[in-house]
This record gives sequence, C-alpha cells and structure tokens, in this order.
Amino acid sequence: MSPSAPRLLWRELCLFDGLTTLAEPINLLVADGKVAGLWPTRLFPEAMAEGAVEAGRGGVMTPGLVDCHTHLVYAGNRAAEFEQRLEGASYAEIAKAGGGILSTVRATRAASEDELLAQSLPRLQALLDDGVTTLEIKSGYGLSSADELKMLRVARRLGELLPLRITTTLLGAHALPPEFAGDSDGYIALVCNEMIPAAVAAGLVDAVDVFCENIAFSPAQCELVFQAAQRHGLPIKVHAEQLSNQGASALAARYQGLSADHIEFLDEAGVQAMAAAGTVATLLPGAFYTLRETQLPPIALLRQYAVPMALASDANPGTSPICFPTLTLNQACTLFRLTPREALAGMTAHAARALGRADLGRIEVGAPADLCLWDVQQPAELAYAVQPGRLRQRIFNGAISYSKEANIHAR
Amino acid sequence: MSPSAPRLLWRELCLFDGLTTLAEPINLLVADGKVAGLWPTRLFPEAMAEGAVEAGRGGVMTPGLVDCHTHLVYAGNRAAEFEQRLEGASYAEIAKAGGGILSTVRATRAASEDELLAQSLPRLQALLDDGVTTLEIKSGYGLSSADELKMLRVARRLGELLPLRITTTLLGAHALPPEFAGDSDGYIALVCNEMIPAAVAAGLVDAVDVFCENIAFSPAQCELVFQAAQRHGLPIKVHAEQLSNQGASALAARYQGLSADHIEFLDEAGVQAMAAAGTVATLLPGAFYTLRETQLPPIALLRQYAVPMALASDANPGTSPICFPTLTLNQACTLFRLTPREALAGMTAHAARALGRADLGRIEVGAPADLCLWDVQQPAELAYAVQPGRLRQRIFNGAISYSKEANIHAR
Ligand SMILES: [Zn+2]
Ligand SMILES: [Zn+2]
Repeated sequence: MSPSAPRLLWRELCLFDGLTTLAEPINLLVADGKVAGLWPTRLFPEAMAEGAVEAGRGGVMTPGLVDCHTHLVYAGNRAAEFEQRLEGASYAEIAKAGGGILSTVRATRAASEDELLAQSLPRLQALLDDGVTTLEIKSGYGLSSADELKMLRVARRLGELLPLRITTTLLGAHALPPEFAGDSDGYIALVCNEMIPAAVAAGLVDAVDVFCENIAFSPAQCELVFQAAQRHGLPIKVHAEQLSNQGASALAARYQGLSADHIEFLDEAGVQAMAAAGTVATLLPGAFYTLRETQLPPIALLRQYAVPMALASDANPGTSPICFPTLTLNQACTLFRLTPREALAGMTAHAARALGRADLGRIEVGAPADLCLWDVQQPAELAYAVQPGRLRQRIFNGAISYSKEANIHAR
Repeated sequence: MSPSAPRLLWRELCLFDGLTTLAEPINLLVADGKVAGLWPTRLFPEAMAEGAVEAGRGGVMTPGLVDCHTHLVYAGNRAAEFEQRLEGASYAEIAKAGGGILSTVRATRAASEDELLAQSLPRLQALLDDGVTTLEIKSGYGLSSADELKMLRVARRLGELLPLRITTTLLGAHALPPEFAGDSDGYIALVCNEMIPAAVAAGLVDAVDVFCENIAFSPAQCELVFQAAQRHGLPIKVHAEQLSNQGASALAARYQGLSADHIEFLDEAGVQAMAAAGTVATLLPGAFYTLRETQLPPIALLRQYAVPMALASDANPGTSPICFPTLTLNQACTLFRLTPREALAGMTAHAARALGRADLGRIEVGAPADLCLWDVQQPAELAYAVQPGRLRQRIFNGAISYSKEANIHAR
C-alpha cells in the first residue's frame, strides 16, 4: 500500500469478524492496508469520515475467505474418467485406460510451467470471485523434484499475478510415482533428502504435507517426512484418517502439526492429541460429497475438546473438482451439520490458523484489510443458499480489488 | 430479431445438440434468431462465412439451459431457520418461531409486486450467468387468488426484464393456507373455481401444478385440480412421490401430464404409466441433497422404459436454495448416478419437453438460437467440475446476450 492510498469507510455493516457476528451495525475504516477502526454505527465519531472514501453501506462484511487446503495447480482434468465410471466402467477398466491420480501426474509432468499456470488460472479466478483472499496450494502431482518444484513455482507466480495471498505446501508424499513402484521407502528418502532441501533452497515452500493411508504412505514413512521438514524449520500438516484410522493426526500433533485434514475416521485419542498440540481439524466436505462417503468426521468430539475446525475446498481433479467456497460452507452445514457460524469461522479465522497465519482471517483493528462485502442480510445466508454472484466487493490488502457494480455496469 | 441483426458464425465447436455430442468439430451459423446451419468444420462451405460476424472458435456449445422446475419468486429467505435447526432447535420450536413454508407465504403476501420482483432478480441473474435461457417459475407462496396472481405477474415481468423465456405455472395447491385450516376441500374448490379461472383470464398461466403428498393434498384433490386445468386447456404437472408413493405420477399420466417431479418413491407401474403417456420424469437432486434423502429415484426403471429424464434446480427457499444449474448437473451425476450426457439432456432437450416446448433445448437447423458457449473442452466437464464462471457466451434468440470477454475487460 502506498501511503497515499485512500482511506475507505463502510457504514452499517452486519459484521462477522471471523469468529462471531457482532450484535449491532458496524462502521469500518480501512487505512494503509489495515483495519484502522471498528465502531458500532450509532457511536461512530463522524470526524473519522473526513477525507475517507465512502465505500459502501449495508450488507454483510466478513474477512476475506481463506481456503487452507487446495490442490489447485494441475494439468488436464478427469472428466472423461468421471463419465466412464458413470457409464459403467469398472475401476480396473479405468486404471487400464490410464485413469486415476497417475493420469494427473502424467499431464502435470508433461505441461510446461506456463501451461500449468494457464490451466490453473480459471480455477483460481473462480475462488477469487467467490471471496477468497488467501489460499494454500499443494504440490503433489509432480512426484519428482523437478516437477514438484515446477508446481510450487506456478503457485508462487499465481500469487504475483492476482490480488491474493498464496501459501505453498510441498506434498511430495502424495502418491508413489511409477518409477518407484515397489520401493516406497526409496521414494520417501527422495522426498526427505532431495525434494524438501531443493524446495527450501529455492524459497518455494511454506509447509510440508503427507498422505498417510493404506493406499498411500505409512505412519512411519510420514514421520520421516515430518522430521525432514522440521530439520528445515518447516511446519507440517497431514492428510489423515480419510479412509481408515491410521493414528496420523496424533502423529502430526506430536510434531506440532498445523492441521490434520479429512479426519472422517479420527478417534477420541486423536482428538485429544490435537487439542493438546493446538493442531487444527480441517474438514473437507467436497471430497466427502464427491466420494459419497458415509463416515462423518467426529464433530461432536472436536467441539467437546475445543479443537478449531477449519473448512476447505480440497479443490483437486479427482475427489473434489469444486472451486466454489460458499458451496463448501453449504456442504459443511448440510452434510456435516456444522452451524453456519462454525462454517464461516472454518473458512476465516480457523483456516488462517491452519496456515500458521493467525494474523489473517479476522476483522480487528490492526489486521490486514482482506475483506468481503456480500449482498446478503445475515451471515447465515452465505451457508444456506448456493448462488454465485453474491460478492459485492472484495477488498485485498486495503484496496477494493473487485466491485460488482463495476461489473454490472459493463454488461 | 430485426432482419438487420448480424449473422453469427462459430467455428470448431464441440457441440452437444441437446441429446448427444457430435463426433467431430462443428461450424454453426445463426441468422434471424435461429440456427441457420450446422456443418462439420472440415465440410464447411466457406461462402457461408461471407458477411457473418466471426463470433467464436473452439469450446463446447450446448443449447441454452432449461430449468423446468423452479419456485424462484418469493420474498424473504429461510436462512435463520436453517441456522436454528443446525444449532439444535427442534421442528416444533421452529414452527413455534414461525418457520417453515408458511413463513415464506407470510413474507410473499406482505411484499409488494415490486419488492417481490427486486428480491427474485438476483436469483434469476445467477441462473442466467450459468447458462439458463428458459425457465419455469411456479406460484405457490401466495395461496390466495390475489397473491398467487401477484407471483405470476412478477414471473411474467422478469421475462420482460431479462433476455430469457419464462413459462409460468400456477401451484395454488402447494400448501394449505392458514385461513383454510381443517378445510382442505374448501381450499381446493377455491383453486379450481376461482384461482385457475382468474389466472387464465389474466393471461398469466401456462400450466398447473399440485403437490400430492401426505403433508399436502390427496390424489383425489389433485385430480379435481387437473380437471379444472383441463377445462381451461392448461397442461398439468405434479410434485409426486417425493416422500411416499401416492400414485400421483400415474394419475398425472392419465391427464397427459407434462411431467411428474421428484419421484423418489415412484414404482414400476407409475413408470409404465408415464412411459405410455409421454410424461417426463423431472429429477430434483438439489432437494434430495438439502433434505439428505436416501431413497433414490428409480433411474434404472426410467431408463428401461425410456421415460425422458429432465433435471431442474427446484430453486426454492426451503428445500433447495440453489441457483446454480451446473451444480445441478453435478448433483445428478454424483447423487443419482446419471451420466453426464443424461444430465445435460435433462437440462436441455428433456427439460424443454417437460415444459411442452419441444422446439427448445435442441441445436438443430430452424430451432430458436438459444445457446451457451462454455470454456471447457468436452461436455462432461460441465457435470464433473463445480466452478462458476465457465460460461463464455450466452446467446439468446440469436443475439449474444453475455460475453465473458467483455466482462473481464471491464474489471
Ligand atoms: Zn488434499
Ligand atoms: Zn417444487
């Protein structure tokens, strides 16, 4: 923000601050990229309006949405496979036809960095248009040092192209690449000894993730990756207990994990370990929906132990081809029975914490002014209705980066 | 269309014609509001390009989407009720707090015609922005002659305001209004003897619908409404077998019903009756999803008897607050296991037939040029991924009514 950027004033907002909805209408002042003031409208010191641009009146203001778990960068898509399965092809037939995660790995390896960027951009734009100001992007479809770093470079470039904050996560331990068939220990050694150091040396990585599951990597293998991450000062997170209880969440908690994600099969001991470590529970209802799962994450236990619940799109080509954050809010309420308040906190304050960015996802004086103004009357509407186009303004780092008015006038 | 409107030419389209995807790239010419020509690109007679505007190249072209079952016009919303239920309130408590369908009836009755229009417009805009060119709008939250006609007038006005075709359906027999408590026969008599004639006299109604269910009206009462509709030359449709098997679909088939809608509990005899009468099966996965139903509609039987399956949003404030047609495609595939081809036919050719408009929902020479050009490579992607903003152009009645390019440049 240049010091000459205008101060911006909104009046009579219904304000959800990242954790709760304030009881009465609020005036909000932004200056120098930050939230400069928050007052109940009836107590607003009118002198503060002097020299400020009147940026809006009414509507619901929330923190900019934070999508803390995405696989947004990849090449190709799996629509043909989706169609084949619905037309009756078996998993074996689809695998034989080259489907599944390795088809995305092939396409991602084959794509140039520019192609990868171009293919990822419309997905990112969809997230932006529905209010995202911060998101995490994982690697995990390269599965070689060069291709994983290519994915991370694309993630960094996306953050330079568009007005948002992107954090990168190295997910080398996502799947076993074909050239390591039968040698998963060898691949984990590559991740630990070559991939992580290379990503760190290139300044491309903010965190490290693993997929701990029967069909992916064992807890012992994941622990090696956590140790390598810690040696490089990187925080860790984990794809945990999605299909079975592997104890991966408790393992991540032992390494002060930022978050354990999916966690449909998490047990009480795991919840306790997360609570003690401050590890966030990231719920991914899009994958639950797409896979037609029936095992619900242990919401009641997470509430009981006060584990913060984040919520994310899990945007990915196989199990959650969904780039529409307010749908994720709705899915969390409809499928997981979260309250709208929990869902909104899950995509703001708690999601920011799952990224180790507790400075984001809240509206409070001094916080970066990443904000969304919505054309609704109450925050619960964002989770209740599924309807694109309700974002009235998007404010990034103190500046209005999107305004529906401008868009409508252009039609 | 004025005779001087430009002829428009698209090249190298992947074309889904409403029933199937053509095998090779297509050039498409539009003139005088109609599809004027369709050629495989390699056989295109270049002389046809003379004087035509080059409107686009590549992408997937489909018919404009047809949403054949919506309750789009209403006042207020039920977000507070949605929130209360998730926070643990019982149905009794919600009813005591004034929730449920009657809360929408109260709000709709209280709203002026202009207010009702203003509140419905953003929902309609969301449908348009995702490719809808024709939709049905039902009444059913007025439940008095004056208020039902008010809803239908708003529906007609929406069709004049925006570039789309709207068909109106009188759904007086949606719920029992409080002033008829204990006298459902009396209310049905009002629908038959006053409401239908008044709507016909005002030129406001294209079809008549009923809600046949334990919690609504009996088959015998619905039959009286069908007979009244027939006396006025109006086609009928039915909310049928959503919560239990009432035989309502077979009843509607006896009256040459355009469609039977929901039909989760439809049995084989009902499917046979629909097949014999040419009654379309309209599937509403949004309500199935929102209500977390488990009883699937009899898709295999519908396929076996070749009953056309339409697909609709059921946009309504209680059980399907969803205004995003490509999500409806995805829900039909994910939840009902329709193929992407069936889903797309369900929101184009078959949906048009469910409205008695067999001239719409197809791309064929001579048909009205209501078209969507999508930023995808193959039609299945529209059902596979959930991502707003993939509509590149929307063509209504032979003119480009929306273009993403113009929109992006305006940002
Ligand atoms: Zn993931
Ligand atoms: Zn309905």
